[in-house]
Amino acid sequence: MRVAVLYSGGKDSNYALYWALKQGFEVKYLVSMVSESDESYMYHVPNIHLTELQAKAVGIPLVKGFTSGEKEKEVEDMKAVLEGLRIDGVVAGALASEYQKKRVDRVAKELGLESFAPAWHRDPIEYMHEIIGIFDVVMVGTAAYGLDESWLGRRIDEDALKELVRLHEKYKIHVAGEGGEFETFVRDAPFFKARVVFDEVEKRWSECNYSGVLEVKRAHLEPKGQV
Amino acid sequence: MRVAVLYSGGKDSNYALYWALKQGFEVKYLVSMVSESDESYMYHVPNIHLTELQAKAVGIPLVKGFTSGEKEKEVEDMKAVLEGLRIDGVVAGALASEYQKKRVDRVAKELGLESFAPAWHRDPIEYMHEIIGIFDVVMVGTAAYGLDESWLGRRIDEDALKELVRLHEKYKIHVAGEGGEFETFVRDAPFFKARVVFDEVEKRWSECNYSGVLEVKRAHLEPKGQV
Repeated sequence: MRVAVLYSGGKDSNYALYWALKQGFEVKYLVSMVSESDESYMYHVPNIHLTELQAKAVGIPLVKGFTSGEKEKEVEDMKAVLEGLRIDGVVAGALASEYQKKRVDRVAKELGLESFAPAWHRDPIEYMHEIIGIFDVVMVGTAAYGLDESWLGRRIDEDALKELVRLHEKYKIHVAGEGGEFETFVRDAPFFKARVVFDEVEKRWSECNYSGVLEVKRAHLEPKGQV
Repeated sequence: MRVAVLYSGGKDSNYALYWALKQGFEVKYLVSMVSESDESYMYHVPNIHLTELQAKAVGIPLVKGFTSGEKEKEVEDMKAVLEGLRIDGVVAGALASEYQKKRVDRVAKELGLESFAPAWHRDPIEYMHEIIGIFDVVMVGTAAYGLDESWLGRRIDEDALKELVRLHEKYKIHVAGEGGEFETFVRDAPFFKARVVFDEVEKRWSECNYSGVLEVKRAHLEPKGQV
């Protein structure tokens, strides 16, 4: 099975990649859709240029497709990007978003591809435990009451997960951020040959919107297995 | 004819793209090989992250492949990247380098693809006149006696070409930079929907090596056709 993994650099797309590799799939390409505007409905936007470092760390070619950012156009743009790849299937990190899942499934069907969403409808808490066990993952965007500025750049570990569960009980935050409550970035994974190190970051916090972004200004790859 | 254009962002790969579009080819992907090290024998390295802005300006998906930077491995890595694309041909900006041309031809042949090199063995001066007429192109790297620091960031226009011709007569500099004398970057072309604007650049000049690089630290796209 030759596949492309829809890849934004966050936990869900890295989980999709992890799963695909574990299945023994031949992952030919990682595919990132980049919005021409700064808005995007379907894809993970902040720090999307960092996906190149991750792809380099994994050693799988990265295909960057461009989209105007208009809601319906994005799907057609993604289809045009996938249409030119010699693959049998596409793997996505969709967790609970019917919107995203349906559209990827439709594009896959139209192109005669199998569509996989290994995290689809997983229990969020159990899924997050697994994520924490596999990845070095940090929060790079927040947009939910309860997630204050201190969450930006925070590593998601078991302690952070406990707090997310409490915030879920209090404010109904989705524990895996599926409602757009937060965005993540994976700095390291078992299949990374080098880890991403942030050299310079800036927190951009808006009190009015109660949301923020960790802007990674400089980052580099550091080989692993060295003391 | 569905093709991929080998794309580094410089004048030769933009000329290859220009030619392919003029032929009426369907350019499905631009393909950039990025070296894992900072050295690369076959590909244009400085500022390669800027190719993403150019691809966005053109509106054609960009495939970034990664290579260890070892001389023979690069060809195999490029082959693996092209192998997964549903294309009939590959277009390269090769001008006079037998090394590059032979390897691209070999990979194309092994994959059953047609190989095009529209600038191959063109007269350098006549070719540069054509380049100047089509593109807004600047020098972003220099490595030849005669090309001092003032060339970094300089726009290549007819005056610059006259000087290059003089430098050719004096120091045997290849007028189109084919021997690695200089690297270029295309900021605008007729098929760009937006132009690349450099916001912050830094000249990095080494007097010992008599060579330099224009490092583009920040750049953005500016829509065209606006007053």
